Amino acid sequence: MRDRSIWAWGWRDKFPDPGARQGLMQLARVLVPAAHTALRDEPPDEPSVPSPAIATPAALAEIASQAPRDRAMRSRGRAFPDLVAGFAGDYTGAPDLVVRPRDEAEVARVLEVCDANAWAVVPFGGGTSVVGGVDAALARRDRAAVVSLDLGAIAGVREVDPVSRLARIGAGTLGPALEDELATHGLTLRHYPQSFEMSTLGGWLATRAGGHYATGPTRIDELAHAMTMITPRGLLATHRHPGSGAGPEPARMVLGSEGALGVITEAWMRVVPRPRWRASASVAYKDFTAGVAAARALAQSGLYPSNARLLDGNEARLHRVRFDGTSVLLIGFESADHPLGPWLARALELARDHGGEVVSGPSEADDATRSGAAGAWRQAFFDAPYLQSALLSIGVLSDTFETACSWTQFPELHACVTAAVQRALDEECGGGIVSCRFTHVYPDGPAPYYTFIGALRAGGELAQWRAVKAAASEALAAAGGTITHHHAVGRTHRPWYDRERPALFGEALAAVKRTLDPHGILNPGVLVD
Amino acid sequence: MRDRSIWAWGWRDKFPDPGARQGLMQLARVLVPAAHTALRDEPPDEPSVPSPAIATPAALAEIASQAPRDRAMRSRGRAFPDLVAGFAGDYTGAPDLVVRPRDEAEVARVLEVCDANAWAVVPFGGGTSVVGGVDAALARRDRAAVVSLDLGAIAGVREVDPVSRLARIGAGTLGPALEDELATHGLTLRHYPQSFEMSTLGGWLATRAGGHYATGPTRIDELAHAMTMITPRGLLATHRHPGSGAGPEPARMVLGSEGALGVITEAWMRVVPRPRWRASASVAYKDFTAGVAAARALAQSGLYPSNARLLDGNEARLHRVRFDGTSVLLIGFESADHPLGPWLARALELARDHGGEVVSGPSEADDATRSGAAGAWRQAFFDAPYLQSALLSIGVLSDTFETACSWTQFPELHACVTAAVQRALDEECGGGIVSCRFTHVYPDGPAPYYTFIGALRAGGELAQWRAVKAAASEALAAAGGTITHHHAVGRTHRPWYDRERPALFGEALAAVKRTLDPHGILNPGVLVD
Repeated sequence: MRDRSIWAWGWRDKFPDPGARQGLMQLARVLVPAAHTALRDEPPDEPSVPSPAIATPAALAEIASQAPRDRAMRSRGRAFPDLVAGFAGDYTGAPDLVVRPRDEAEVARVLEVCDANAWAVVPFGGGTSVVGGVDAALARRDRAAVVSLDLGAIAGVREVDPVSRLARIGAGTLGPALEDELATHGLTLRHYPQSFEMSTLGGWLATRAGGHYATGPTRIDELAHAMTMITPRGLLATHRHPGSGAGPEPARMVLGSEGALGVITEAWMRVVPRPRWRASASVAYKDFTAGVAAARALAQSGLYPSNARLLDGNEARLHRVRFDGTSVLLIGFESADHPLGPWLARALELARDHGGEVVSGPSEADDATRSGAAGAWRQAFFDAPYLQSALLSIGVLSDTFETACSWTQFPELHACVTAAVQRALDEECGGGIVSCRFTHVYPDGPAPYYTFIGALRAGGELAQWRAVKAAASEALAAAGGTITHHHAVGRTHRPWYDRERPALFGEALAAVKRTLDPHGILNPGVLVD
Repeated sequence: MRDRSIWAWGWRDKFPDPGARQGLMQLARVLVPAAHTALRDEPPDEPSVPSPAIATPAALAEIASQAPRDRAMRSRGRAFPDLVAGFAGDYTGAPDLVVRPRDEAEVARVLEVCDANAWAVVPFGGGTSVVGGVDAALARRDRAAVVSLDLGAIAGVREVDPVSRLARIGAGTLGPALEDELATHGLTLRHYPQSFEMSTLGGWLATRAGGHYATGPTRIDELAHAMTMITPRGLLATHRHPGSGAGPEPARMVLGSEGALGVITEAWMRVVPRPRWRASASVAYKDFTAGVAAARALAQSGLYPSNARLLDGNEARLHRVRFDGTSVLLIGFESADHPLGPWLARALELARDHGGEVVSGPSEADDATRSGAAGAWRQAFFDAPYLQSALLSIGVLSDTFETACSWTQFPELHACVTAAVQRALDEECGGGIVSCRFTHVYPDGPAPYYTFIGALRAGGELAQWRAVKAAASEALAAAGGTITHHHAVGRTHRPWYDRERPALFGEALAAVKRTLDPHGILNPGVLVD
């Protein structure tokens, strides 16, 4: 069986070998001239963990493990601080027990045992949180033990309704397995967050993940027909109607609950046939502002492109799409129902109206979105998380953050945020670069996504990251952006989330938490206290 | 100033005169042969109300009224039982006091006074609830007084952001005024529930209204960018981002709160330019089942038609669209951005694939959707609520109910529901007719909307209606449909809502209610106790 890296993003065999990392060092020196890159040794694959604070309860023996590797693997997610801790081989906060229930009844039993003992429970899907959402050490607080509840055994496509285009899927299903199984029915969920390869359906639902579509139904919220969640008080199954106007929507309390209200075990998802037609093109803009205007026109056109990603000059370079400093707007349409020529033609009219030059396409073909600039972007997109781990291992800081704001707010927000992050990079890293792309565009505003890169000081990694992250978060808050469009809150974003959240909604959410999880055992520290 | 009818739907001057009602009687005898129609006298326009239980508090004197007509007008909504009570001139349950705050501070003051006195508060928009949502008598329970909080003075478009296509609008704004004001900016909300002429933005938000679009963003939820709600505990303003993934969405707690959690005072709404292009056609089906299949194909096509309404034979006849018993699928597209020929062409391919015959159109013109079958349907759509009042006044029962279910469930649900309602009409009214249309179609299922017509017995009106309504609701519940797709819960649907709602969500909602409205003064009996 293929192993995940004990410390880095993703599969162990995809971590670059020393030769490849040497090449990366040369690239890094171009990008970040201040970098004193060095090939640091990877940590040993056999982690050392402290003795567990508890013995395995008899009631959970069949589904429990206290093996050091199992516990170490579920210590945390894959945020930058997690990579730093993992690279240092630090597993002092590992959970005491890992359980892997196989059905709803076993999940309920785990919660019952933990509730009776006041142990903290961290629901664990793919372990890819970049916001401290699955952190055993931070969940511990004053609890006697932390139990990692791994959903991996509650997986697979269980039922398909081709007429209503619905599929019932276990929450622990990883992205690729989910798509492989649906493909045998000629169907697809078409939800590709950047973590797709390593993350699970349950994790997407719990964190309100954003899909790869730039417009239209793309957030996992809109793809969820119904969900089942187990709470310490029992089961909560949302209704199975395509739409109901009966009071506030129960599903919207489950979506974004981040493991703090219950454990999502399965969902009926809206699926679609695989696309047969694609049409795409890439349009370059000398001026980022013109690209923004074109992206807005496209978002407000009612054409619903599947792709409408704007990359600024730095972003286009990092993603190996353009190397001349121009911004590029990637436009794509896809359909299982009809050819898309008229759609793309109108989109390109809009793109040209704002001064764009078509640099790739227009192409209409089955694999159109996989060639040209769009294809290069796609591959770089899925490889980016691997790159972050590799960069850390040669002494380079890289991370991302994201937000959403109105089109009206964007110019000011963008100026403030890039200035604040650049200043922090200059102070903390002796320089660095910031890039921006739009991951999603709505009629009322974009979801800007920022990447920053700088040089690390050995031993100063965490302090450097914290300073830049805080500068970014403060700038977002000051400019009126949300602290997260799709990365979720976890524990990293709590201070800014608490400020952004309406106070009375915070009180209401705390009341819901007390109702569903009266002893506060679920993911302590996440969302509410 | 134009007067609303004291008892019937809408404007008083639109209630048909005796001559027109004579004509209606002839039509009714064709539709409902069992009907013993008779021209009943309208009730007097000057209602008699009981003495108010309280005096006007000094703190509210400036915005309060105890005038009999003001109190009577706010006694209830416009459900069938409301029409019966109004026709009988029964205002025994009128609110004791009507207040008309002019801003958020005055709303807060009203809640403060009512909270201190433990008076019930019924937020009142257009007073068009068809589910007992604004019923002063039912809100009273053991309270010393009932106060009707009329939002009518918190009205108008207050701010427009043309770049992000947003408008800040007072909750008390009536549909036509809202559209008139937006039109001066070249914008429109394009949300036309059947109550449009008489209902308010705040009412749409509080009840999660369904718009006239059949697909795509149509429910008011999707058009709401941000909302302000005043609760007895203070103000709750949801965030102003186009999308945020920070925890469960606060706006989704406000949407559908039906006046039980707070008073919605204003909202930033997503607006659009007025459509420049339209394309439409009507397609007839000998077989309703074939029409259903065509509607499903259209809903799942990704074409996002603005209109995709299927009317069964009875419905087509009632709406004066077709008279030969065939079902008809009304298809329409509209855009402010591009001509729609390719969209309609593909939709008609799908429609014909299922055996349909194009009976009107295809037409591409600015007023295409206003001519032909679609135009006839549109006028009948807005006139239907007037017709219900007029029918009651000649001794004919008519009402509607609606639901949503998956495409897979629909055939069985439709068979059970029509059989149950027909049986109830046969028993209660000596016969009658049931018709069905789809108001909205989703990829995973339709929102079927039923109309029933039967003969009334003088004095038995309420019992007859209750029996048919209960038969319909029980059949919906048994067949797995929701008790309401867009009419809301109010008090009429409470028994079925309570069964449909996940029990733990009910407990969570009650906890939210206790947090925001600790003394339970807001719209008692609605949603939660």
